[in-house]
Amino acid sequence: MKNKLITIEGIEGVGKTTAVKVIQDYLIQQQREFILTREPGGTEMAEQIRKILLTPHAEKITPEAELLLMFACRAQHIENIVIPALQADKWVICDRFVDASYAYQGGGRQIDMAKIQMLDQWIAGTIQPDLTFLLDASPEIGLARAKNRGTHDRIEQEKLDFFERVRHVYLKRAEKFPERFCVIDATQTLEKVQHELTMKLDELFASTHYAH
Amino acid sequence: MKNKLITIEGIEGVGKTTAVKVIQDYLIQQQREFILTREPGGTEMAEQIRKILLTPHAEKITPEAELLLMFACRAQHIENIVIPALQADKWVICDRFVDASYAYQGGGRQIDMAKIQMLDQWIAGTIQPDLTFLLDASPEIGLARAKNRGTHDRIEQEKLDFFERVRHVYLKRAEKFPERFCVIDATQTLEKVQHELTMKLDELFASTHYAH
Repeated sequence: MKNKLITIEGIEGVGKTTAVKVIQDYLIQQQREFILTREPGGTEMAEQIRKILLTPHAEKITPEAELLLMFACRAQHIENIVIPALQADKWVICDRFVDASYAYQGGGRQIDMAKIQMLDQWIAGTIQPDLTFLLDASPEIGLARAKNRGTHDRIEQEKLDFFERVRHVYLKRAEKFPERFCVIDATQTLEKVQHELTMKLDELFASTHYAH
Repeated sequence: MKNKLITIEGIEGVGKTTAVKVIQDYLIQQQREFILTREPGGTEMAEQIRKILLTPHAEKITPEAELLLMFACRAQHIENIVIPALQADKWVICDRFVDASYAYQGGGRQIDMAKIQMLDQWIAGTIQPDLTFLLDASPEIGLARAKNRGTHDRIEQEKLDFFERVRHVYLKRAEKFPERFCVIDATQTLEKVQHELTMKLDELFASTHYAH
């Protein structure tokens, strides 16, 4: 398949939304059909679970329940949205994907990585990103930016050390999978971030050999 | 611990609600403190997910998502309801528990039993029922009775062969764990069912050696 699955990862406040927009504009310019989606969510049911996951509750949500809910959403999303889009020759841009479970539930919540890997292999299987942009910044910078957005969801309310663990796992995964990860310093100017995103997309397109 | 976890299992229409009431009345008579709960559900959040699970959706729910949602609910329920109740010396009566995942998602949806066992060991761990009443009847009889109740939830709308597989797994688990399963023929008269429930509870109490 010449169409690709591109994912955008990073902690709160690193500019994922802007990056998604840059990628979207790039694909429009290249006249590629694509869908824009997100995790947790992307289907009606997964969005309902997203709401439960991100709303602050009086009830303590266990790390295990959080992880299983993420992968339940993912099963729905992959089966009903991602696979049909890829089969219809569309590109898929996804705001957070499996790497986020390693980072947030593995790093942040400190769940055994082997459990996450087992769920990854079972639920995502061969559906792995072709390209993953990791927007990287320290939690101090990210959270300060996110603060300006106002209210925080349940996970965004976590403390600094939580996000330090999340960032650490993200960076370790980027090291482990250099062939698909592109780490971008999110503290640069918007123009520089846009430039790096575009350069990488140019590279991806050059290697994709579209028949024109 | 002298208090116990009692679970009630069976397909639709076998009279679980009545059995729960008999057990409840028995514990009241014995002046035992207990809680009455159910799966999927039992906590505010798990009940929200129960609603998503049982409401018919336009979107196809994958077997994997269904299983993961069941175990996410279970993680919440065990951590926030079952363990605190057992620690407070209360008995726990639970309308469906882990066996239901083997029967419905393993038998009915035909998910690999090893996956379910892995989730069982991870999420339920040592929290296993002391006594499980399996109310048994053929799906023809169960579904005919359930029909009289009116509307059906998403899982109750499944076909006969689905419930035959569910029943088969329930009976196989009863064979595998004879020390905790008590299979009751649900096609008997209500009086006979009540009598068998009470006999088994007498036996459990006799073996529990309460200090009075």
